[in-house]
Amino acid sequence: MTEFPHVHILDADQFSRQDIEIVLEKTKTIEALSKEDRVWGLLRGKVLASLFFESSTRTRLSFETAMNRLGGRVITTVGFQFSSISKGETLYDTMKMIEAYADIAVIRHPEEGSSRIAAAAISIPVINAGDGIGQHPTQALLDLYTIHKEKGGLDGLKIAFIGDLKFGRTIHSLIKLLRHYNVEIVLISPVDLALPESYRKALQKNKTKFEETEDIKALWDCDVAYITRIQEERFVDRSEYEKLKNSYTINRAFVQASRKQTMIMHPLPRVNELSTDVDDLPNAAYFRMAKYGVHVRMALLCLCLKTEIG
Amino acid sequence: MTEFPHVHILDADQFSRQDIEIVLEKTKTIEALSKEDRVWGLLRGKVLASLFFESSTRTRLSFETAMNRLGGRVITTVGFQFSSISKGETLYDTMKMIEAYADIAVIRHPEEGSSRIAAAAISIPVINAGDGIGQHPTQALLDLYTIHKEKGGLDGLKIAFIGDLKFGRTIHSLIKLLRHYNVEIVLISPVDLALPESYRKALQKNKTKFEETEDIKALWDCDVAYITRIQEERFVDRSEYEKLKNSYTINRAFVQASRKQTMIMHPLPRVNELSTDVDDLPNAAYFRMAKYGVHVRMALLCLCLKTEIG
Amino acid sequence: MTEFPHVHILDADQFSRQDIEIVLEKTKTIEALSKEDRVWGLLRGKVLASLFFESSTRTRLSFETAMNRLGGRVITTVGFQFSSISKGETLYDTMKMIEAYADIAVIRHPEEGSSRIAAAAISIPVINAGDGIGQHPTQALLDLYTIHKEKGGLDGLKIAFIGDLKFGRTIHSLIKLLRHYNVEIVLISPVDLALPESYRKALQKNKTKFEETEDIKALWDCDVAYITRIQEERFVDRSEYEKLKNSYTINRAFVQASRKQTMIMHPLPRVNELSTDVDDLPNAAYFRMAKYGVHVRMALLCLCLKTEIG
Repeated sequence: MTEFPHVHILDADQFSRQDIEIVLEKTKTIEALSKEDRVWGLLRGKVLASLFFESSTRTRLSFETAMNRLGGRVITTVGFQFSSISKGETLYDTMKMIEAYADIAVIRHPEEGSSRIAAAAISIPVINAGDGIGQHPTQALLDLYTIHKEKGGLDGLKIAFIGDLKFGRTIHSLIKLLRHYNVEIVLISPVDLALPESYRKALQKNKTKFEETEDIKALWDCDVAYITRIQEERFVDRSEYEKLKNSYTINRAFVQASRKQTMIMHPLPRVNELSTDVDDLPNAAYFRMAKYGVHVRMALLCLCLKTEIG
Repeated sequence: MTEFPHVHILDADQFSRQDIEIVLEKTKTIEALSKEDRVWGLLRGKVLASLFFESSTRTRLSFETAMNRLGGRVITTVGFQFSSISKGETLYDTMKMIEAYADIAVIRHPEEGSSRIAAAAISIPVINAGDGIGQHPTQALLDLYTIHKEKGGLDGLKIAFIGDLKFGRTIHSLIKLLRHYNVEIVLISPVDLALPESYRKALQKNKTKFEETEDIKALWDCDVAYITRIQEERFVDRSEYEKLKNSYTINRAFVQASRKQTMIMHPLPRVNELSTDVDDLPNAAYFRMAKYGVHVRMALLCLCLKTEIG
Repeated sequence: MTEFPHVHILDADQFSRQDIEIVLEKTKTIEALSKEDRVWGLLRGKVLASLFFESSTRTRLSFETAMNRLGGRVITTVGFQFSSISKGETLYDTMKMIEAYADIAVIRHPEEGSSRIAAAAISIPVINAGDGIGQHPTQALLDLYTIHKEKGGLDGLKIAFIGDLKFGRTIHSLIKLLRHYNVEIVLISPVDLALPESYRKALQKNKTKFEETEDIKALWDCDVAYITRIQEERFVDRSEYEKLKNSYTINRAFVQASRKQTMIMHPLPRVNELSTDVDDLPNAAYFRMAKYGVHVRMALLCLCLKTEIG
C-alpha cells in the first residue's frame, strides 16, 4: 500500500482520494484486529497529549480510548485548567512544552486556525479535533467510514444533509471529503441556514450533482441522511424557527416511510430534531458511529506515528 | 465456587448471602495476589469509564487505582465538564457513547435511580458509585469486608451505628447487607436523626435484634462502632445540635473505656465527631478501610468482567 | 554508586553535593536508556498520585509524563475538585487515603510547608512540586541538570540571575543547590526586587563569590543567564516599573552581543522579558529544559521508589 503522506491531520482539504482510502483500509484492519484482541501494544511506550482548550467530552474520550486501546498513554488537560495560558502564555510556547513531553498531540481549540499554528510550532504530529468554526477532519473521516462500511462503498449514493448547513462544521468537513466520490447530494434546510455560497461553488466546480430544498420529505429518496441540530439562536426571525422546528423533527414513522433503507446519521448530541423512537430501527447508525470513531482514531494515531498495523 | 450472577452492581438489595461471600472470597484472593505482585495484567486491554457527574475524590480514585493496579485503563470525566450534558444530552445518549468506548463503567450521579437508568441503556456492566440519597453498594461491601477481615467473621457480632442514621447513605446500604448475617445492631443517634421507619421495619421482619438509644456509651458493649458525621444543617432546632454535638465526639479516652476491643469505623471525611487522637489506636480501622476499598473494587471489576482471578 | 539517602524530595536544602551527583548521574542514565527505548516497564505496576491543590499544567504534565514513560500509572486530581477537602477534610486525612491508593505522591499546594506535613503523615514517598512561596526542589534539580549537561559541568561557571530575585521561588531553590559548587553568581534586578538578605548572607557564609547590579549588560560576561518574569504588581512605584521593564527585555541582538556563548534559561511561562526572536539561537536552552525536566523526574521517581535503573 502507498505510504500515508501526512504528518499532521489538520483539514479535510489535505486528503486526496488515495489518502482517504488508506484511512478506510487501516480502520478496517484495526476493526478486525480489535475483535481478535490484537491491537494492544501497538503504541506501547508512546504518549498522547490530549489538549482540550474547550471541552468536548465525546471527542476527547474517543481519542483517549483509542490511545489506551493501543497500549499508549495519555496526558490530558481540559479548559481553563491550562494554568500557564491563564498567565498569558502563547499557544506557541505551550506547544513547545508539549513537544518535549509527548509523541503526538490532539488539540481542540475555540479559535479557527489554531491547530495549524500548533502544528507549525513543533515537530511531533498534531491532530485537529475541532478549531472554532474551522475544521473537524477526524469527525468527517469517521462519518465517511460509517457510510462506506454500512453501505459497502460510496460511489453512486444519494446523501442528504439536514438542518443547520450554514454553521455545521461537521457537514462542511464531510462535503469536502465527498468531492472525491461520485455521490449525489441533497441539501435540506431552511433558507436562512443554507450551505454557504463557497461550498456550493466548490460542488459545482467539482461537478458534484446536488439539489437544495426546504422539504424534509426529500430524504425519502436518499441512501443516507445526515442530520444536525437546528439551533434556535441562529434564526433572525423567531416565528420562522417556531414554524420550522416541527417539520425538521425526524421520528420513527417518518424514517419508515422512506422508499430506500435510508441510513440515519447524527454527530450527536441531539436535542429535538431526532426522536428517540428511531433508536432501535436498523436504519439508526448514530450510536454505532461512536465505535467507528474509536477505530478511525486508532488508525489515524498509528498512521501519524508511522506504526505498522496488522 | 458458584458463579457471580450479576452483570451490574446497583443496589445492596441485589446481593444474596452467597453473592456477598463470593465478593469477600475474591477480595481475599486479590489481597493475597497483590502482596505477591500478581494482579498486574488481569484486566490488560480493558477500559473503565469513570463517570463522576458529581465529584467524590475518595471514591473516584479508589476505582481508578483498582483498575490501574489490574493493568486496565481508565477514561475519566468529572462534574460539569460533561460538555454534551451541558448541551442538553440525556443520560441515555451519554451512556450509548460510553458503551462504544469502554468495557465497564462506574457512575456517580446526584439523582437517585440514575445508575439503574444508565445500566438499562447499555450492554456493558455498570457499577453504582453513589446516586443521590439512593445506594452506594460498593461502600457497603467494603464496610462488610472490613468487619469480616478484622473480626474474623460477622455472625455473633454486636455492631453500633452512630450519628446521622436518617440520611446516612452508607449506613442504609450496610444495614441491607447485614440482614444476611446473625448480628445484633445498636442504633445510636439523636431522635431527629433516627433510622427511618422503613429500615426498622425491615430489621424487625428479618428478626434482626436491634436497640435504639441516644446514649453514646452504648458503644462500649459493641464489637464494632460505625461512626458518621452529624451535620448541623440537619437539625430543626439549632440549640439541640449545640447540646448534642459534644456528646457525639468520640475521642481516645472514650474508645479506651470500651469493655470490648471496639473497632472504630468511619466512611470519611470526618469533621468533629471523631478525634484525631484515636488514629493510632489499634481499634482505628478507618484508614485501613481505604486499602480494603481498593481490593474490594478490584474484585468487583473482575467479577463484573467475568475475569478469572488467581 | 552510593545509595540515595532520601525518602522524600521536599527542599533543596536536603541535598548534599553527593546526593545531587546521584540525581545528575541517574538522569544521564535515564536519558541514554530513553533513546534506546529501554525505560518502559521500570515502574510497571506502580501508581503515582498526582495531587495538584493548585494548578500548574507544566509541572503536572511533566511528572505524569515521567511516570507514564516508565510504565507506571497515574491517578490525578486538580484544584477545587478535591471534594473531601471542600467538606473540610484535613491534608493529613487526605494523605492517609492517598497512602492506601498510591506508591508515591507528588504534591503542589498553595501553602508553604504543606509538602512536609503531607510527608510526615504517610509512609510512601512524597515529592514537593511547589508549596506556596516555599520550595520547588525538582525545578532546581532540572535547572542544575540543564547547566551541567549543556556546559559540561558546574565548577568555574559565572551564572547570572535576572528579574524578580525577591519572590522567585525557582531562583531561591537553585541558589541553595549551587552553594555546593564553585560558581560565581551575578544578581541582576531592580533594587526593589533584590535577593532577600537571608540568601545573601548564606552566600557570604558559603564564601560564594557574588555581585549585585541593576545593569542587565552584566550578563554579557556570564556563561549562563537565568531569567524570570518581572511582575508589575510587585512594584511599589508604578513609574519605576515602566522605567525598568524595557531595560529587562532580553532580545536576539542583546544575546548576540554577549562576550561568552551565554546560555539563556527561563523556567517559563514568559511574558515580555524574553523575546521570541531569541528562540532559534543555540543559546536558548529554555525549550530543551522541558525535556530535561521529564528525565530528571523519571530519575527522581526511580530513586524514591528504590528502583534499579540501567
